[in-house]
Amino acid sequence: MDGGAQEIVALVEMLSKLPGLGPRSARRVALHLVKRRTQVLVPLGDMMKRVAENIRECGICGNFCTGELCDICLSRERDSRIICVVQDVADLWAMERGGDFSGRYHVLGGLLSYIDDVGPETLRIPQLIERVRAESVAEAILALSATVDGQTTVHYIAEKLVESGVSVSTLGQGVPIGGELDYLDDGTISAALKSRKTY
Amino acid sequence: MDGGAQEIVALVEMLSKLPGLGPRSARRVALHLVKRRTQVLVPLGDMMKRVAENIRECGICGNFCTGELCDICLSRERDSRIICVVQDVADLWAMERGGDFSGRYHVLGGLLSYIDDVGPETLRIPQLIERVRAESVAEAILALSATVDGQTTVHYIAEKLVESGVSVSTLGQGVPIGGELDYLDDGTISAALKSRKTY
Repeated sequence: MDGGAQEIVALVEMLSKLPGLGPRSARRVALHLVKRRTQVLVPLGDMMKRVAENIRECGICGNFCTGELCDICLSRERDSRIICVVQDVADLWAMERGGDFSGRYHVLGGLLSYIDDVGPETLRIPQLIERVRAESVAEAILALSATVDGQTTVHYIAEKLVESGVSVSTLGQGVPIGGELDYLDDGTISAALKSRKTY
Repeated sequence: MDGGAQEIVALVEMLSKLPGLGPRSARRVALHLVKRRTQVLVPLGDMMKRVAENIRECGICGNFCTGELCDICLSRERDSRIICVVQDVADLWAMERGGDFSGRYHVLGGLLSYIDDVGPETLRIPQLIERVRAESVAEAILALSATVDGQTTVHYIAEKLVESGVSVSTLGQGVPIGGELDYLDDGTISAALKSRKTY
């Protein structure tokens, strides 16, 4: 990277710290940007500025929005009696792409973790419990990852919510669509066997 | 991506068009940026603006710089009698990382290509020929890719430069350091055999 202008070296350095990018791909992206200054670099920089200035968290669910509340919380077509609890906005997007869920969301902002010292107060768990109490929520779907931290969080939230009389469910586990048995881990096969359906 | 604010959708769309990024990795990067607004998003946007405003091409070699000429062309420690011809600034960076070359560069900005309709005038080839004539250049190293377009470009430039009496060389071909014979293609093995050295 010697012989490059200071600004480009700094840009590559910043890009290389983004998730999924390393030094080599950061250099490729930086070159791409500098070569397409007016078509790509300037619009992207402007859009980042707009996002930084306008995007905030929805006051109810934690989704990203430009106003006080997000489109989903504002929509009258979404069922407010069902709340899907997700780890992150990325998971909310994944659920929305599926297109099968017509309720509302609650974004935790992470998972409970003893190793990383993440407790319930760091996440939006108190807000969830408060929300379930205040609104007339019938069911809470805990759509969290099937990892240790994910399941710890499921157990913690489920215990708290069951106290307030709401029905709590988790996502079904089993063979993913298009999945080949040979490539699945033992845990998944065991879960799929337990949740087998009569044909 | 439904249920996201318009700005984030637009940001993901732009990011997904960068080289090496697809829709999924663009979403990951966008989330990373929005979550770390002050530490990452704002500085990165600012740096892109600075690069867009300040970076231009060196008037001699085509490297990126902030002034009229780049650091390498301005340096008195670089040998001006040897010019290394590269396709892109990325290749200039790669040569500089090697640290073995102490001459100057000439960035073509691409390779000749009949398929993509790239002729000598689209690239900085006329400037190279003019430069070799004007400056007292002793050797031109054509450090271009070992692809069809790369070798077409090598042949074209070599013919033009030999006319002006300069010594023209290309990079040596053979087994890369750490390379296992079993994984190399036939062309490389054949090239390595031709350029074998007595032990």
